[in-house]
Amino acid sequence: MRTYTLSTARDAGPLYRQLCDALREDIRAGRVAADAQLPSKRALAAQLGVSVLTVETAYAQLLSEGWIYARAKSGHFATPLAAAAPGAARRTGAAGTAGTTGAYGTTGMAGPATSPTCGARAATEGGVAVATCGAGEINLAGGVPAPDFFPFSAWAKIVRRILSARRAELLAPTPPGGAPALREAIAAHLRDFRGMDVDPARVFVAAGSETLYAMLVRALGTARPWAVENPGHKTIAAVYRQCGATVRPVPVDGAGMAPDALARSGAAVAHLSPAHQYPTGVAAPAARRYEWLAWAARAEGRTIVEDDYDSELRVAGLPLPTLQSLDAAGRVVHLETFSRALAPTLRVGCMVVPDALAPRFDAVFSPLSCTVPNLVQLALADFLAEGHFARHLARTRTRCRLVRAELLAALRDGPLAGRATVSEERAGPHLVLALKTRRPAAALAARAAALGLRVRPLASFYDGPVPREAAGRLVLDYSALPPGRAAKAVARLARL
Amino acid sequence: MRTYTLSTARDAGPLYRQLCDALREDIRAGRVAADAQLPSKRALAAQLGVSVLTVETAYAQLLSEGWIYARAKSGHFATPLAAAAPGAARRTGAAGTAGTTGAYGTTGMAGPATSPTCGARAATEGGVAVATCGAGEINLAGGVPAPDFFPFSAWAKIVRRILSARRAELLAPTPPGGAPALREAIAAHLRDFRGMDVDPARVFVAAGSETLYAMLVRALGTARPWAVENPGHKTIAAVYRQCGATVRPVPVDGAGMAPDALARSGAAVAHLSPAHQYPTGVAAPAARRYEWLAWAARAEGRTIVEDDYDSELRVAGLPLPTLQSLDAAGRVVHLETFSRALAPTLRVGCMVVPDALAPRFDAVFSPLSCTVPNLVQLALADFLAEGHFARHLARTRTRCRLVRAELLAALRDGPLAGRATVSEERAGPHLVLALKTRRPAAALAARAAALGLRVRPLASFYDGPVPREAAGRLVLDYSALPPGRAAKAVARLARL
Repeated sequence: MRTYTLSTARDAGPLYRQLCDALREDIRAGRVAADAQLPSKRALAAQLGVSVLTVETAYAQLLSEGWIYARAKSGHFATPLAAAAPGAARRTGAAGTAGTTGAYGTTGMAGPATSPTCGARAATEGGVAVATCGAGEINLAGGVPAPDFFPFSAWAKIVRRILSARRAELLAPTPPGGAPALREAIAAHLRDFRGMDVDPARVFVAAGSETLYAMLVRALGTARPWAVENPGHKTIAAVYRQCGATVRPVPVDGAGMAPDALARSGAAVAHLSPAHQYPTGVAAPAARRYEWLAWAARAEGRTIVEDDYDSELRVAGLPLPTLQSLDAAGRVVHLETFSRALAPTLRVGCMVVPDALAPRFDAVFSPLSCTVPNLVQLALADFLAEGHFARHLARTRTRCRLVRAELLAALRDGPLAGRATVSEERAGPHLVLALKTRRPAAALAARAAALGLRVRPLASFYDGPVPREAAGRLVLDYSALPPGRAAKAVARLARL
Repeated sequence: MRTYTLSTARDAGPLYRQLCDALREDIRAGRVAADAQLPSKRALAAQLGVSVLTVETAYAQLLSEGWIYARAKSGHFATPLAAAAPGAARRTGAAGTAGTTGAYGTTGMAGPATSPTCGARAATEGGVAVATCGAGEINLAGGVPAPDFFPFSAWAKIVRRILSARRAELLAPTPPGGAPALREAIAAHLRDFRGMDVDPARVFVAAGSETLYAMLVRALGTARPWAVENPGHKTIAAVYRQCGATVRPVPVDGAGMAPDALARSGAAVAHLSPAHQYPTGVAAPAARRYEWLAWAARAEGRTIVEDDYDSELRVAGLPLPTLQSLDAAGRVVHLETFSRALAPTLRVGCMVVPDALAPRFDAVFSPLSCTVPNLVQLALADFLAEGHFARHLARTRTRCRLVRAELLAALRDGPLAGRATVSEERAGPHLVLALKTRRPAAALAARAAALGLRVRPLASFYDGPVPREAAGRLVLDYSALPPGRAAKAVARLARL
């Protein structure tokens, strides 16, 4: 094992993250061999002169990203990566990434906005708004927190300022892909939060995810099938089908969309959510990510759509690096939505396209007008640039962690104790609850509705036949559940 | 000739319009036979006890709508309508139109907002803002007036009010077709301005015309070709093609898209702009409208998309009635955009679908989120409901008429006198100028650009081969030309 020089300089970022970045880079580059054992936490801490907690935190992050795996009582080992995509070849093949410090370049990741310290501070400053839930209904079916959680005063202030001072800009058409100020603010956000190196000219802004899905079909074509995750968000498949694509639902296993099934599907495009599969909650480990990239690189014209839905709301550890950061072949289109983390009624999202695909997207967008009103474009640009979005994400994460802890405690100690099992990947604000019941999914949903409980059976996320193991399973999405309601929620769940 | 009882009651509307409505209804219903001669203006005026000017105005409006035609020195005659679509059958076949006062029901048309008197008053109150043009460029290529023409203070006041007082509504998702308040305001606007009887549930709001075009393809399918006007707005064909449709450009003659060519095209959908064809300026006469409706009714699955682009900006007479108002077979989808008349950067438009097609559009929209942000939806609803939009349209019309008069005078008396011919249909803010030149279209455009003149050759609006008669013709779209610039514009045109 190499040794690492960690810096205590203020702008170097926390020690655990420096260690994490260094280890990751060594594994990725093959300097730590596949299946090689890592030093014990205690040994590495002593070698580097840091606390055991620092090493522990770094290992936990690498585990959750899939770069290392653990074996009970024998320690941690480097994950073997798909041979098809060696790091060196990937790096040199990357068009336009010269000058970055690597796929997970620490430059970008070291911004104060992502540091847990800063996140915690922002959350304390901002407080955790307690959203109220109308009419006694308990919402475990997702959505956004109640209106008073939205950073309304900051948003309204920006909108008012733009209305007063930037009249001409409000009325001048923006480029089809969006206002330069917004695209630059988005590129900076992706750099600070996801370590991505994004050219603002490769960012295309549109009126929400569903508009982006439609534009993807227009750019990538319908000659060959599109693969979607099964189970998954049904709207994705619905939009692709509406736009004329043949959709192949591909099974999700414990690491995300199954690569063998993807290869067999005959699809040319795979819609994946590596950071946070919904509803299973799987965060794809590194090995799976390389398998997907290998699939894309294996034949001409294959594209991966990386849907980064909710990745900022990851309840444990840092946000995961994006698939696009690992992709040197230029096969990954990265999707972001601001609707989910901010407000669904804003209707704004964007995609970041690789250089190789840029001409196609330019051709599709060039005759069109941007679908997002200028007022929203300019306001979001300022909202991002002034750090309001980062603060809001930090508050949202804190809230999610709090509600999660309450919910897990209520499930463990409440009326369902011993009568249900929880599976959770800590990737986003939801978990899967397995009830010991023979009630069919539709009956469960109807009974829940009668009890004033909004919750969706796992079965409702499948396209086609529902596997037997989905029976009795409920997806508990607590993104809209206010703190302090977990016990009541579990009491109602128990009555199912 | 029957006699008519005209009312001088305040809410009955102007006498000329009452007469116009009554005559139109008689022609439509066949009570005035095809090619029957109408009484002279003087005779009818004496019979009804109104001024000759009243009859003259009514005849002028009916002429422009195509219900009557004029023969030099012999008077006015009723236009023969397509036998395929008799009025009575059309009326009884109309689903959901029971209770209206007829296709051009006076109820709706009598609203004060459309009365020329009121329009003139509003224009006087509001004044005619003189937009300045940056950097000496002269814009005869369309677009919108300079920012200071937009009713900014009213708009900003509404947006501020909504931000302050309607936080919860701003964050609650609207139905996929749009917020009920907006759909109701749109239905009221279409009733007052176009005499349409619209169920708000049949209004689907989306992020501008191009989004609407894409949704149309998703609802109506690509199994059979789509016909578009040639020459026409190229973006329409571009969006349809991007969405997978086979597009057939169909020639436009002096009355709009040629019905024979449409029939031969094999298209199942025809995209038409009956009120105002761009760039020819043709406003389709009644007979042509019935031919189109007959085409649509002749075979299953045919649909007309009525693109009502700019109809409110008609520079002469009342806005023309819509094709959808005449359609009893439920084959016409009516499109409206608020971008053009208000601000392109608002990105909001809507379509009104007939009952027969509603299930298909409901199915396409139901899994989706509305593409227009709530803030814009709610603000536009208030802007319409409070009459700001009507006032803005009146100001815009006044401005268009003023600029048109200046431009025509400058063309008649200026350096181009005798060297160019103007063809104009008074349907919208543009005309076609035929120059005596052999310069090819591209060279004309390049020379214009070098002179600081934005203008588009007619040839640039053709899909496929450009007919010989387009040579030397320029489309002069003065929608963005400020008053007082016509002489300068013509001076530059003369240098071409």
